[in-house]
Amino acid sequence: MTGMSLATPVTVAACQLRIDIDDPDGNLARVVTAVDAAVAAGAQLVVVPELVTSGYVFADLAEAWQRAEPVDGPTVRLLTDLSARHQIVLVGGFCERSEGERPFNSLVVVDRGEVLAVYRKTHLWGTEKNVFTAGDAPAPVLTTSVGRVAAMICYDLEFPEMVRDVALRGAQLVVAPSNWPSNSPPPGERPPEVVKAQAAASVNRVFVLVTDRCGAERGVEWVGGSVICDVEGYAVAGPATGGEALLLADLDLDRALDKSVGPYNDAMTDRRPDLY
Amino acid sequence: MTGMSLATPVTVAACQLRIDIDDPDGNLARVVTAVDAAVAAGAQLVVVPELVTSGYVFADLAEAWQRAEPVDGPTVRLLTDLSARHQIVLVGGFCERSEGERPFNSLVVVDRGEVLAVYRKTHLWGTEKNVFTAGDAPAPVLTTSVGRVAAMICYDLEFPEMVRDVALRGAQLVVAPSNWPSNSPPPGERPPEVVKAQAAASVNRVFVLVTDRCGAERGVEWVGGSVICDVEGYAVAGPATGGEALLLADLDLDRALDKSVGPYNDAMTDRRPDLY
Repeated sequence: MTGMSLATPVTVAACQLRIDIDDPDGNLARVVTAVDAAVAAGAQLVVVPELVTSGYVFADLAEAWQRAEPVDGPTVRLLTDLSARHQIVLVGGFCERSEGERPFNSLVVVDRGEVLAVYRKTHLWGTEKNVFTAGDAPAPVLTTSVGRVAAMICYDLEFPEMVRDVALRGAQLVVAPSNWPSNSPPPGERPPEVVKAQAAASVNRVFVLVTDRCGAERGVEWVGGSVICDVEGYAVAGPATGGEALLLADLDLDRALDKSVGPYNDAMTDRRPDLY
Repeated sequence: MTGMSLATPVTVAACQLRIDIDDPDGNLARVVTAVDAAVAAGAQLVVVPELVTSGYVFADLAEAWQRAEPVDGPTVRLLTDLSARHQIVLVGGFCERSEGERPFNSLVVVDRGEVLAVYRKTHLWGTEKNVFTAGDAPAPVLTTSVGRVAAMICYDLEFPEMVRDVALRGAQLVVAPSNWPSNSPPPGERPPEVVKAQAAASVNRVFVLVTDRCGAERGVEWVGGSVICDVEGYAVAGPATGGEALLLADLDLDRALDKSVGPYNDAMTDRRPDLY
């Protein structure tokens, strides 16, 4: 056991929201309602989806530019205000204006009113490649008021290298605002995105929280599979099954400081970097 | 699409066996029965568990040495004979004699009677650290009569770096003879080992076949969770739920040559090795 130690579990929340690309004001309002509800339920860290105010299914680059905001724009201001008012850690995604040809698919981590980090998605999914520039910095690992938190966005989480990297940098909890396009698992099978989130938690012995979205948008449906995984990889809240949802879990984040797996093994020191 | 192309699906089998450390002759006999049954069902590639003839729960190093065999010992001879007789690819684990202080926890891959590779487990689990020497070579990726097959053992599969490495070296199917000690997932949750096998398949778009064991041994129970996963990470056979089992699946191994994920993405070229 090393690093910071917290006396009590941390209550974390995933706010799975309906988002509508044609109703930006409504998106802002739904964020307020959802965060307020999560805090009322005891949440100290709250995660809302990727691109939570802009919507996702942009018609083209021009429309993405229209929705792009600077870091001092309305989305980050709203999240900062909510974080300050409730004295929580708040993470959410927004479409970030850039100096380049395309905006970024970004997230912000705010702690008690202070912006700790803006992260730009580094693994772009699908037609995102037509409207966004990929970030060129690793996912942040931040010392917050609830513990060491890493943040990445949606498809990023499906690269084991990315999660291993933040775990090795001391992350106790990995959060991933997401927009998971729907798929059709065979009966009895969870969506692969959920399975990969669980495995990411288990192989690294970190907690993983994914906040997905809902609300059909221009013909695209979503998994709506928000999930909170413990260090064994078990889903301790969710996976949600579509529709708006508030997932809550009390996490003893100190468990993520201990990488041992029984008396003889350690998820990190058992690695054989000489071989791969 | 690159590399070899096979006209028809390959039928693969996981033979989940009862193994008894105090009945080595019975273990050999059970291997014959199980492989014969798999072949009768059409299998062209058959995988039996880790340490399939020696048993697993050694009292001490002395007992492990007693059960250790050279590569031309009875276990590999048996597997070679079965492979030749049935003209199949056969993979199974054995306790390998060494020149050092401890034996190896090894597997052999035999194709139509020819030993293609012996691999020594590189990530040792639990008290294995007291009785085995860890191998110092990467997992093999072999051109077999059914396609490109990688082989590793049990806990090896839980290191995403290891599976990524064999996928990058062209593996279409990753097989893992295993002995998964039992655990107690919460209701509705699969064993973490199964989840990690599914995720390993999905993130790499390779097929994954795990052959677990059954048969309580000196107080140790087993998951008995053999599973065959497709490139999406879905379980297409299993997970078994304890007890002897024969899992069969017809796999179009060519699917593992195509790493694309929809029209815009690729599981391998989307990686950002500059960032991790």
